[in-house]
Amino acid sequence: MSLTVMDFEVEDIRFPTSEQLDGSDAMNADPDYSAAYVVLRTDGPGGTDGPGREGHGFCFTIGRGNDVMAAAIEALRSHVVGRPAPRTAADLAALYRTLTHDSQLRWLGPEKGVMHMAAGAVVNAAWDLAAGLAGKPVWRFLAEMTPEELVSLVDFRYLTDALTPQEALGILRAAEPGRAERTERLLAEGYPAYTTSPGWLGYDDDKLVRLAEEAVADGFTQIKLKVGADLGDDVRRLALARRAVGPGIRIAVDANQRWDVAGAVEWMTALAPYDPYWIEEPTSPDDVLGHAAVRAGQPVKVATGEHIANRVVFKQLLQAGAVDFLQIDAARVAGVNENLAVLLLAAKYGVPVCPHAGGVGLCELVQHLSMFDYVAVSGSWEDRVIEYVDHLHEHFADPAVVKDGRYVTPRRPGFSARMLPASIAGHRYPQGPVWQARRTPEETD
Amino acid sequence: MSLTVMDFEVEDIRFPTSEQLDGSDAMNADPDYSAAYVVLRTDGPGGTDGPGREGHGFCFTIGRGNDVMAAAIEALRSHVVGRPAPRTAADLAALYRTLTHDSQLRWLGPEKGVMHMAAGAVVNAAWDLAAGLAGKPVWRFLAEMTPEELVSLVDFRYLTDALTPQEALGILRAAEPGRAERTERLLAEGYPAYTTSPGWLGYDDDKLVRLAEEAVADGFTQIKLKVGADLGDDVRRLALARRAVGPGIRIAVDANQRWDVAGAVEWMTALAPYDPYWIEEPTSPDDVLGHAAVRAGQPVKVATGEHIANRVVFKQLLQAGAVDFLQIDAARVAGVNENLAVLLLAAKYGVPVCPHAGGVGLCELVQHLSMFDYVAVSGSWEDRVIEYVDHLHEHFADPAVVKDGRYVTPRRPGFSARMLPASIAGHRYPQGPVWQARRTPEETD
Repeated sequence: MSLTVMDFEVEDIRFPTSEQLDGSDAMNADPDYSAAYVVLRTDGPGGTDGPGREGHGFCFTIGRGNDVMAAAIEALRSHVVGRPAPRTAADLAALYRTLTHDSQLRWLGPEKGVMHMAAGAVVNAAWDLAAGLAGKPVWRFLAEMTPEELVSLVDFRYLTDALTPQEALGILRAAEPGRAERTERLLAEGYPAYTTSPGWLGYDDDKLVRLAEEAVADGFTQIKLKVGADLGDDVRRLALARRAVGPGIRIAVDANQRWDVAGAVEWMTALAPYDPYWIEEPTSPDDVLGHAAVRAGQPVKVATGEHIANRVVFKQLLQAGAVDFLQIDAARVAGVNENLAVLLLAAKYGVPVCPHAGGVGLCELVQHLSMFDYVAVSGSWEDRVIEYVDHLHEHFADPAVVKDGRYVTPRRPGFSARMLPASIAGHRYPQGPVWQARRTPEETD
Repeated sequence: MSLTVMDFEVEDIRFPTSEQLDGSDAMNADPDYSAAYVVLRTDGPGGTDGPGREGHGFCFTIGRGNDVMAAAIEALRSHVVGRPAPRTAADLAALYRTLTHDSQLRWLGPEKGVMHMAAGAVVNAAWDLAAGLAGKPVWRFLAEMTPEELVSLVDFRYLTDALTPQEALGILRAAEPGRAERTERLLAEGYPAYTTSPGWLGYDDDKLVRLAEEAVADGFTQIKLKVGADLGDDVRRLALARRAVGPGIRIAVDANQRWDVAGAVEWMTALAPYDPYWIEEPTSPDDVLGHAAVRAGQPVKVATGEHIANRVVFKQLLQAGAVDFLQIDAARVAGVNENLAVLLLAAKYGVPVCPHAGGVGLCELVQHLSMFDYVAVSGSWEDRVIEYVDHLHEHFADPAVVKDGRYVTPRRPGFSARMLPASIAGHRYPQGPVWQARRTPEETD
């Protein structure tokens, strides 16, 4: 059955999370978790939510500017509407290239920032649609492709000094024999998670300790604390958390780009006695050489990636030996295709991928990428964990579920990207009831 | 007199330049030169174009997506309207930080792409306004600030491993004694230029030779050719150009990001016998390590910068010894303030700055930055040239003028950024008459 993408709906959806200081860190004081959301609708049968009828995708933002993201997604409409619904690796490769290679839109990046994230939202919506048509969750849809199909999805431009298509093929072929066994194990055991829920900077000490203890009781073996606003506070909070969880639990810390190189070295040298597992985003996400200097200058392992703009910067972090962990984000780069390039680069360099999640919908998306990586790329979950934050999952039709410290492997078709219609209607900005109820009388006039 | 910014007008202005293949290169096949344009209007006297009444700024794009840029500028409105009109270094530093540090909007970059360019447009409009109020061209307004004021304009976050405020102060103080003499010389002689007009990829051989000969006759000592689509064509075109201009004229070549590292090395090794002066944008603008490898791997000097996202990437290009020339762009980073950081970094590392221009309005803006650099930062124009392309200057109230191969030093107050009202009205997209005349009958229905 040949289907066509007939419609392209863009929504500005925002949640007033800043009211609870959920998500507060040293750089992001008051985020309102938001999604610039896109629905591709085909002429397929099955009602509005039949499989293959719709593909959903989104960019994650933290409030203001979500309208700019929505405008950027809108600018891609003509590349999608009227196109046959993507079903195969070839279709998805072609769409990705069309969206990222538009010779005029490319000027707005190239391949970074608003325009690139918008391409990612549309690419991910296309994957949701294609996997839905195949009746498989995205992780499995990917993991059942041949090595040749997977390589065809990647744009190797600017990568070949670090990874050639032939090398990528070699990595994927080497992982082929174990695919079936790992798929079974994944379905039975799920994928390792860690939790950031205890560690937001806006939480007081009691809440921090209580949530850290709960995390361990819930089966997590790694938690994460936000740091970087005040060294004395960080020492106190890290000591409290260490006392609460004991020596056997990993405590990662996250500075959200707060420091220059010298500051990162100094601060982490002071925190090192409390055995932090990694320091995340010590400095600018653009600073490859800075991350290498931070890694060389202090004893704590270095992680970054949630704000890395594209595969070219990921490539350099690996070439420069700048990081111990790569943190992909499902919605920052140009979707599944570009993240596949990053997974292959990480496998080549032997660096574990521990995705960024949280926000709204990021856990839902990124679990598919790590699970695919386990089955068909790196073939390992050693030293790999997906971030988990227990926020806003109730708004999704196929929410991420974590049990006993592990993501439960999704079985429903698609990318788990679909927000519930009532949640969309309620949180449209500014006209949805959640936002209308917050307007001041002056604004209402 | 205290003035307030009362109004903030955003325009989507496009020129149908793709019809002539002006601006065509190996990556940008059919650009329609465009400006997402902003006007800050104060409550000052003097009619709509009185000095200090308005500040004009813009982002440059090449067509599609100019509406996304306009939406991004619009997202900054609330940070500007109602604010006192900026007059001093302190005012301009505060505005720049407000626009680039908005904790929610920052997520859309950080400091790169659409949102960062939008901040640049507003920052540059504020400089146009402030210099207008001071009755000086921007280059002179800057060159008459104290070293301390200039240092206060820079955001040193993520720079201090390469350049501290104290080092920047030292560079500026060292240049102070010669300021008056260099100002006189600049006013008398203008600033060295080179021309790209002969070299667009869409031009045939006859046009290339004719324009190259004209460039030499007009007094230019450097021209530039686009390369990167076909090696055989590039060898033939470079040989023709070399024959036309003779051995004493510099011929730079520009690949507009076309190659991977190995391709750049191979291609430039083949072109080296024709003595190209520099290879510009051999690969991805994000690839610091790639540029370093290209520089090390072949004999031609390396230049890049027009697509460098921010000061952090410029810093690394210098730290890695990746470039022989830095090519700032007046409208890609966050305006005058961030370009001042780049000029100081370049001075620290002793790398000449040869700005990118052309497009629409880029020559007008960037001349001010190079002239300021000559007077008050590097103190030199040796090995420094500003790009010049003879397109679209007729749309500006104070157009860039090149005579005998040199930019004529601007004397009118402001940033030379002001587009003529008739040009704005004619080229508004899509409602202006230039675009209405191009609509197909279907579109008009």
